[in-house]
Amino acid sequence: MRQKNKTMKLQYLTPGPSELYFTVADHLQVAIRQQIPAISHRSKTFEQIFAHTVEQLRILMNIPANFHIVFTASATEIWERSIQNLVISESFHFVNGSFSKKYHETALDYAKKATAIEVPEGEGFEITKIEIPDSNELICLTLNETSTGVMMPLEQIYALRERYPDLLIAVDAVSIAPYPELDFSKIDTLFFSVQKCFGLPAGLGVWILNERCVAKAEKLQKQGVAIGSYHTIPSLVKMAQKNQTPETPNVLGIYLLGKVAEDLNRRTAKTLRQETNYKAALLYQTLAQNPVFEVFVQNPKFRSPTVIVANIKKESNAEFLQICEKEGLVIGEGYGNFKKNHIRIANFPTFSKETIEKLAGLIENYR
Amino acid sequence: MRQKNKTMKLQYLTPGPSELYFTVADHLQVAIRQQIPAISHRSKTFEQIFAHTVEQLRILMNIPANFHIVFTASATEIWERSIQNLVISESFHFVNGSFSKKYHETALDYAKKATAIEVPEGEGFEITKIEIPDSNELICLTLNETSTGVMMPLEQIYALRERYPDLLIAVDAVSIAPYPELDFSKIDTLFFSVQKCFGLPAGLGVWILNERCVAKAEKLQKQGVAIGSYHTIPSLVKMAQKNQTPETPNVLGIYLLGKVAEDLNRRTAKTLRQETNYKAALLYQTLAQNPVFEVFVQNPKFRSPTVIVANIKKESNAEFLQICEKEGLVIGEGYGNFKKNHIRIANFPTFSKETIEKLAGLIENYR
Repeated sequence: MRQKNKTMKLQYLTPGPSELYFTVADHLQVAIRQQIPAISHRSKTFEQIFAHTVEQLRILMNIPANFHIVFTASATEIWERSIQNLVISESFHFVNGSFSKKYHETALDYAKKATAIEVPEGEGFEITKIEIPDSNELICLTLNETSTGVMMPLEQIYALRERYPDLLIAVDAVSIAPYPELDFSKIDTLFFSVQKCFGLPAGLGVWILNERCVAKAEKLQKQGVAIGSYHTIPSLVKMAQKNQTPETPNVLGIYLLGKVAEDLNRRTAKTLRQETNYKAALLYQTLAQNPVFEVFVQNPKFRSPTVIVANIKKESNAEFLQICEKEGLVIGEGYGNFKKNHIRIANFPTFSKETIEKLAGLIENYR
Repeated sequence: MRQKNKTMKLQYLTPGPSELYFTVADHLQVAIRQQIPAISHRSKTFEQIFAHTVEQLRILMNIPANFHIVFTASATEIWERSIQNLVISESFHFVNGSFSKKYHETALDYAKKATAIEVPEGEGFEITKIEIPDSNELICLTLNETSTGVMMPLEQIYALRERYPDLLIAVDAVSIAPYPELDFSKIDTLFFSVQKCFGLPAGLGVWILNERCVAKAEKLQKQGVAIGSYHTIPSLVKMAQKNQTPETPNVLGIYLLGKVAEDLNRRTAKTLRQETNYKAALLYQTLAQNPVFEVFVQNPKFRSPTVIVANIKKESNAEFLQICEKEGLVIGEGYGNFKKNHIRIANFPTFSKETIEKLAGLIENYR
């Protein structure tokens, strides 16, 4: 842990935690100078911070006024809170990787009858072939499977809404928010953590939910189902309406999120999307053209723009990871069973076109 | 939220969030330079950070090897997790203020038969007169009631252990840890948050627990009781044994805690206690000698050394708070119903004797 001098500054293109957004260090300095961590979470100053962060997120992700925005410690916590608050007995899960699987397991941990429709890692779903029994209450979708780089197209989510208007739809948008241009009227809740595309220190989850979620949680409460204590939906929403949180929260995290969302809004969501698309296209194309690599997600319509995963046709990924690190770029290993055979690249807003072009050059020249 | 120039730097002697420990700004700079927030929570570097923090806490608080140390998002979360994991049906709560009451309410939220023995705010308990039925599983104690400045003497905790050796004892040490020189063999679990005496940004809870707690949680699990998902005791402990956490945690918070614990160890726990005692004695004495003030906790044996609360015999505390702020010292208002009539002073390690002497001077001269 001692400070190393004269070593090159590395850039972490790992899919979370990832490189900090390039403005974070400055925002942190200002926060310390303004003594943000010392202020009371019941003060007007904190309420202003909370309101600012919510406002900037609404602009950035085009979140309608009828959706509440509340904060937790992580997206992992929201897996749990959504199951506790939105499911009396049955949830339905689309599983195609480690993280969607963990969401399913969370429901099982709470003794719910949780059904999973499962496809192999790297594959998307054929939505039209899936039947969801009416007894289900919550459909749990993972928009971007961070373990394998599979994205669920928004049209598939909208199609599910069309077919099952009475079921609640929850969208795990970890490692892709704020990229998707989502029609919030087609879902009920969406959540993410801040250490991915937002480039912030880990320790904060963002939960966006509509009145149907509030009503459902209140229904459970009335039926005497234990839906939690300080972080139930009614408790979180009630405090959020005062721009506060039930407990002493990660004040610094909420402050930094507001600042980075403001920075992203200055670039505009549209520009962010265009740049993300350009950088993703470059990486996918370069990977496809080098026979040493194989884009892991075969079907282009399921390829994530923000987490790009490739199989490497060598004994392991070690040599290539080393080449990248020598050039100052840390990219991710594979997840789980793919640890040694995959590379995973975080294509997040903090990385410039130049950085991605440099990485593409390394991919192109690797033999 | 705009940066104010030329304003005096205030010191927040508020009982949490509170003034950052005076080394935190430097540690943050080093953390950013070393890219701590970007590193993977599954990396060797993170494991070293985790191990370092645990080691420094063990030294500082003299925590025996048979106690596990795990991390959550807040002490509020640990109220919930301890109830979920350690209570099948009955818990027993000592309530003498807002925070001990919330712990009790947390148990009720989980539909436990939670009994509260309640005394008025500002008072301690007469332990010998309290009978705890054998059907209880967990005794929940609030060592330092932050709302009113009442401390429970350690001897009372030890006496409970003597009388009820089979019941688990949980100690909420928020706003007092690491001050108490506790015999851990007389309790089963203790927890706190870091934005009080440790002077760190909020967003991290520390949970210390022994094998009896692990066994109890496993027993619940075997009986099919839902004890949570990622933050169950078995899950937290299993990962902690690898110096990891189940989810992506507040990496930066864990890093900073280790650094500040190391700083406190350099001063030594003994010195910290002596200085805290000196500063507390000075404040209590000065308050007692000025007829405008009245120490809220009548019985000296129940007076907290770290959160010092006084009633102010004026229409409100506004004038005195203003006088203090003009001198650069922000002290706390009262809690809840006492908001306008109490002052609350955080006597935490970051505040020098000189700062407390200055505050004592203001107390002395106020008429």
